Amino acid sequence: MLVTMRRQGSQVASGPRVDTALQQPLRQPLEALFDPSSIAVVGASDDPSKWGHILARRALESSGDRPVTLVNRAARELLGRPSYPTLVAARADGAAVDLVVVCVPSAGLVDAVRDAVEAGARTLVVITAGLSETGADGVRTEQEVLRIARAAGVVLVGPNCIGLVDTGTSLQLTHALLPPGDVTVLSQSGNIVLDLAALLEDRGLGVARFVSVGNQADVSVVDLMESCVTHAGTRAVALYAEDVVDGRAFVAAARALVDAGKPVVLLAPGRSEAAVRGAASHTGALTSASHVVDAACVAAGIHRVDNPTQMADLLAALLADRRMRSGRVAVLTDGGGHGAIAADTLASVGLETPVLGESARAALRAVLGEGSTVTNPVDLAGAGDRDPLAYARGVAALLAAEEVDAVLLTGYFGGYSTGTTNLTRPEMEASRMIGAAATGWNKPVVVQTIFPGSPSARVLVDAAIPVHRDIDRACDVLAALVTRPAPEPEPVPSPATPLADTSYDAVRALLAGAGVGFVPSRVVHHLDALRRALAEPEISFPVVLKVVGSLHKSDAGGVVLGLPDATAAEDAYLDLVARLAPPAVSVEVMAALDGGVELIVGCLRDPRFGPVVMVGLGGVFAEVLGDTAVALAPVSSDGARTLLTSLRGAPLLAGARGRAPVDLDALAALVARVSAVAAAHPELAELEVNPVLATPSGALALDARAVPVASGQDSTSRR
Amino acid sequence: MLVTMRRQGSQVASGPRVDTALQQPLRQPLEALFDPSSIAVVGASDDPSKWGHILARRALESSGDRPVTLVNRAARELLGRPSYPTLVAARADGAAVDLVVVCVPSAGLVDAVRDAVEAGARTLVVITAGLSETGADGVRTEQEVLRIARAAGVVLVGPNCIGLVDTGTSLQLTHALLPPGDVTVLSQSGNIVLDLAALLEDRGLGVARFVSVGNQADVSVVDLMESCVTHAGTRAVALYAEDVVDGRAFVAAARALVDAGKPVVLLAPGRSEAAVRGAASHTGALTSASHVVDAACVAAGIHRVDNPTQMADLLAALLADRRMRSGRVAVLTDGGGHGAIAADTLASVGLETPVLGESARAALRAVLGEGSTVTNPVDLAGAGDRDPLAYARGVAALLAAEEVDAVLLTGYFGGYSTGTTNLTRPEMEASRMIGAAATGWNKPVVVQTIFPGSPSARVLVDAAIPVHRDIDRACDVLAALVTRPAPEPEPVPSPATPLADTSYDAVRALLAGAGVGFVPSRVVHHLDALRRALAEPEISFPVVLKVVGSLHKSDAGGVVLGLPDATAAEDAYLDLVARLAPPAVSVEVMAALDGGVELIVGCLRDPRFGPVVMVGLGGVFAEVLGDTAVALAPVSSDGARTLLTSLRGAPLLAGARGRAPVDLDALAALVARVSAVAAAHPELAELEVNPVLATPSGALALDARAVPVASGQDSTSRR
Repeated sequence: MLVTMRRQGSQVASGPRVDTALQQPLRQPLEALFDPSSIAVVGASDDPSKWGHILARRALESSGDRPVTLVNRAARELLGRPSYPTLVAARADGAAVDLVVVCVPSAGLVDAVRDAVEAGARTLVVITAGLSETGADGVRTEQEVLRIARAAGVVLVGPNCIGLVDTGTSLQLTHALLPPGDVTVLSQSGNIVLDLAALLEDRGLGVARFVSVGNQADVSVVDLMESCVTHAGTRAVALYAEDVVDGRAFVAAARALVDAGKPVVLLAPGRSEAAVRGAASHTGALTSASHVVDAACVAAGIHRVDNPTQMADLLAALLADRRMRSGRVAVLTDGGGHGAIAADTLASVGLETPVLGESARAALRAVLGEGSTVTNPVDLAGAGDRDPLAYARGVAALLAAEEVDAVLLTGYFGGYSTGTTNLTRPEMEASRMIGAAATGWNKPVVVQTIFPGSPSARVLVDAAIPVHRDIDRACDVLAALVTRPAPEPEPVPSPATPLADTSYDAVRALLAGAGVGFVPSRVVHHLDALRRALAEPEISFPVVLKVVGSLHKSDAGGVVLGLPDATAAEDAYLDLVARLAPPAVSVEVMAALDGGVELIVGCLRDPRFGPVVMVGLGGVFAEVLGDTAVALAPVSSDGARTLLTSLRGAPLLAGARGRAPVDLDALAALVARVSAVAAAHPELAELEVNPVLATPSGALALDARAVPVASGQDSTSRR
Repeated sequence: MLVTMRRQGSQVASGPRVDTALQQPLRQPLEALFDPSSIAVVGASDDPSKWGHILARRALESSGDRPVTLVNRAARELLGRPSYPTLVAARADGAAVDLVVVCVPSAGLVDAVRDAVEAGARTLVVITAGLSETGADGVRTEQEVLRIARAAGVVLVGPNCIGLVDTGTSLQLTHALLPPGDVTVLSQSGNIVLDLAALLEDRGLGVARFVSVGNQADVSVVDLMESCVTHAGTRAVALYAEDVVDGRAFVAAARALVDAGKPVVLLAPGRSEAAVRGAASHTGALTSASHVVDAACVAAGIHRVDNPTQMADLLAALLADRRMRSGRVAVLTDGGGHGAIAADTLASVGLETPVLGESARAALRAVLGEGSTVTNPVDLAGAGDRDPLAYARGVAALLAAEEVDAVLLTGYFGGYSTGTTNLTRPEMEASRMIGAAATGWNKPVVVQTIFPGSPSARVLVDAAIPVHRDIDRACDVLAALVTRPAPEPEPVPSPATPLADTSYDAVRALLAGAGVGFVPSRVVHHLDALRRALAEPEISFPVVLKVVGSLHKSDAGGVVLGLPDATAAEDAYLDLVARLAPPAVSVEVMAALDGGVELIVGCLRDPRFGPVVMVGLGGVFAEVLGDTAVALAPVSSDGARTLLTSLRGAPLLAGARGRAPVDLDALAALVARVSAVAAAHPELAELEVNPVLATPSGALALDARAVPVASGQDSTSRR
């Protein structure tokens, strides 16, 4: 929350007003965190179960040329070294002060931070927990600490964090030593980074920087993502986030990373109600609906994963920097079982195992043994047992084929080099040839093998070829390597004049003004007006009557459909007036539904990501099957088209069951217009057009409604 | 194919007639394969790339007290031992002959088998490939070999197989040494068993028996499954099958194993077109549609997996012999990240992470540290770092809760015993307590840990608690442990009198005779008859006319709907007669579709599993969304109900969107009746009732059609 507020204008809305803005010194650069000239641990301890002990030990062990100062109110000696009661005292004694790790209990936090700032700290890493994540008292303490830091231009990580690491500068300030590497890890969870770091190390990878962001009082995930764009040591970014705080800034920062050639992988639990419950108690996170996070990932061009293993696998593959143009995979194996299993698994992740063309088949026949199957899966049929180089010749021939975007090698390969036989050397040579072919063609080769630890498998890994023990992992990785460029970002428009009246006819007028087509209609206030309206040539029968001004008009019996003539319409009008005394009634031409497809277009404001748009086919599709698709709003017509065609029921739009296809251009334009209206009206919590009727000749809104943001509730994005 | 024929009556239908049935000696028992008194390898070789070398070496290395005889036409010495030109010559020289492994080229196979039989072989394992899987010549050779073996009562495994293993008798006759254990592996693929054996060994498991079934000319997968029911060394059965040959016998054998407490796990690729292509070229397998295999697994109560890793994970969990009553899982962690990820992953496999009741929460509060989250996921919130026994107390309290069917422990646990600290001993003790609690409550505990190789994790594994590195694997396993008893088997009825006439009215009469309700109708042959029919009180307007005798009546414009009165009906009749000259016309009351749900009920004959029944909601549900469900036919009404409620669109039947629920009993009864008719009519390749109209008051067939088995094509099951 606080970060969002700062982004808005550097004032803390609900805390005491920060009145030091003018005389405030320049803020220290974020980079100061990662290569401090000295480290102080405040709240250092001899008790090995305490963070003040663990981090003091880490600081001492990894200090290199950096002086380390230990501070503890009571002790005079800790870990066999002198310690000081305060940092100011240490400074007076000549100690250097730059980065300060604060591990004191929450009751002593304000004093400790004041002491650190006074002693000249440039950066603070606050481990102390029990702050804004626990309630109002904690929020006050956290804001006071932030005020002190801000006033001094000090950068603050945390509180409620577990430290930070920069393996490039040998800074190791968390509970475990992290392996060095290219991946910067930004995380709201402590044990997840241990899990991930171990998995990365298993894959020959490691950590460039790690920051445990904690409550993000000052330094946010977004700030750190921005800093990674120019950090040469970072080649990819791994995020564990329960709350990205400022969703649109997050998307922009992620896009900047992706544009800089640094892939971003996000692990964000919250698909299930229980995970949301867990995250809420864990960090007090305000979690967005999971499909909104998915939409943000699409907008940002980043990969979302569901667990640390997927994350590590994907990082390994993405760092190899080879992508698939589309989803066509050639499978190569020696033994049909692995080939068939691979083909099934590829299909389960949406990839194809297409039959190869005649030219590729001829090329394979020329280099493989007699009896090999050269369609796809390609099966050496025992030839590998006599000549492991056949694998390499097969891979090279497949990579050369125009219709192949990637090669999946699966099964026994790797087994010839586990011992020493006459096949060991040929298999090692085959691995080198496969590595060279992957480099030469710049197409992904991914390997599943029974022997992932074999010498030939290590040759493959060194050639940036992902090697997996399990076929499902290999296929998951391939699926993520298909190039899917993020759509051009659509900026959120400036707020329009707020809609004062959210009655049906006002909402309809707003949308119609934005170019959304409605059926011909008139709003009437008395019977004579109704009669005149019914006489107009544009109003053809049958008609529909709807009461105006009631939010739930259908629940209240405020909608009468299918009135065949003027008499029926007048009777229905009088009945509505008698029953509901509406301020007005809308009389509308009733659209013929046959030949058309009904849809829903709904817009909401997510607390983190702002306006989002949802489309779904009408009726049972959206309600019973949950077949809906979501994007950040506004969407362009192209974006809307992508959304519509991603629906499971999309074949209905394209003309399934012998129907004519609907006018997808008109429908996409309607969705884009509705999303733009919603984005320009932050005062609306919801804006829904339901149903939309899509026909071969156009798209019409048949009804619309809006729900204003409840007073006192601000459900809008703050950017 | 051959096995199926033998099951029918021991005659080879398309080969030369076996005229030795009467003087044929008793067949050797299958068990003779697994503990032979001696081994002979025919086609033994000094060339290390040949099977004759590999299996000769295995035989010599694992022989124990078993004499081993090597036979080669040309050589007089092999692998440093004397060898014989024929087995008869070896026998004459005093060699024992019992199990004979045949590795000769296919051209020499008949002679080699004749020699082996003459020398007194009881069992043959035929490695030789290039037989029925390659075409007509191979089929002939295979049948000749089978004839020779059968005539002598000799049991034959293969051909085109890679050997067999019984670790209980130290018989190791395949390309790799397999680790001993409790799982019998029956496989049509050679490299898959290597893959699986390595994975089982990683999990502390191993192989009881392994048989590579090859072309199943004599001994089939089903025969071997039957033999496992009483084999004491087999506690579970793992199958890799591209073709189960006799589907119904397979289901019966699998049920017998499951009833004997021996879980069965099936890896059967074929979900994708490419996998089917691969299997066809691999073993010439005739593959069933994958959803039919799924239906067979449900009928048999066995588990289907998609890859060897899933198979090994599941076998490890199933052997622990603890099951979940339903899908409610308690998650225990120390650090919210792992808890949230676990909850999401459980949801993705259909399991729940329910909020715990007050009594369970109180129990947890009593044994866990202050600050722990006791809803679910349960988060020790750092308490584990001070007191690893808190994990064990938490697991025990959760297992005691009535609303918890299983516990998933996830995250750091295991890390305290990787080094030696003051927490090592408590963590080891915690593992022992967790093992005891799982045993005491007889509920599954499954563990995901960053440290699967730690000493405390080994204690868990020894207590039959599955330990996983990856959370998705742990959750997959839990999902498979939910008790789902197989439905009572419905026997396939004896064939009824074949339907000679598959015209519309004949099919309708057949179904109506079986109790399937249709709308009132009359078949008329001339205009006067139509007029009389329209005058009958049972025939109310609007009516439908359908031509009789044309298979694709709707394509040909042979159906006219919604005729409001007699004049319209007569006009339509004359038009039909003029256009199509049908033998007759059916006049039917047109059912009112509103308030009802349309469905499809279709029956097919699978080449391996015989009659199957498919249900789906009508229109877009089945066609666009593929929302259908399949079972082996016939199904009981209960089985039909299960099938109907498994549809994604099932909420429509239960009354979604404010509609009254349909009469599910009547609908299920209709499905059961259609399935019984299909099962009793093997002469019908297809039988379809489409649409079925389900309403709150009943279920009616609105149309029906049947397709006879094409002459010369036998698409029926042979049992």
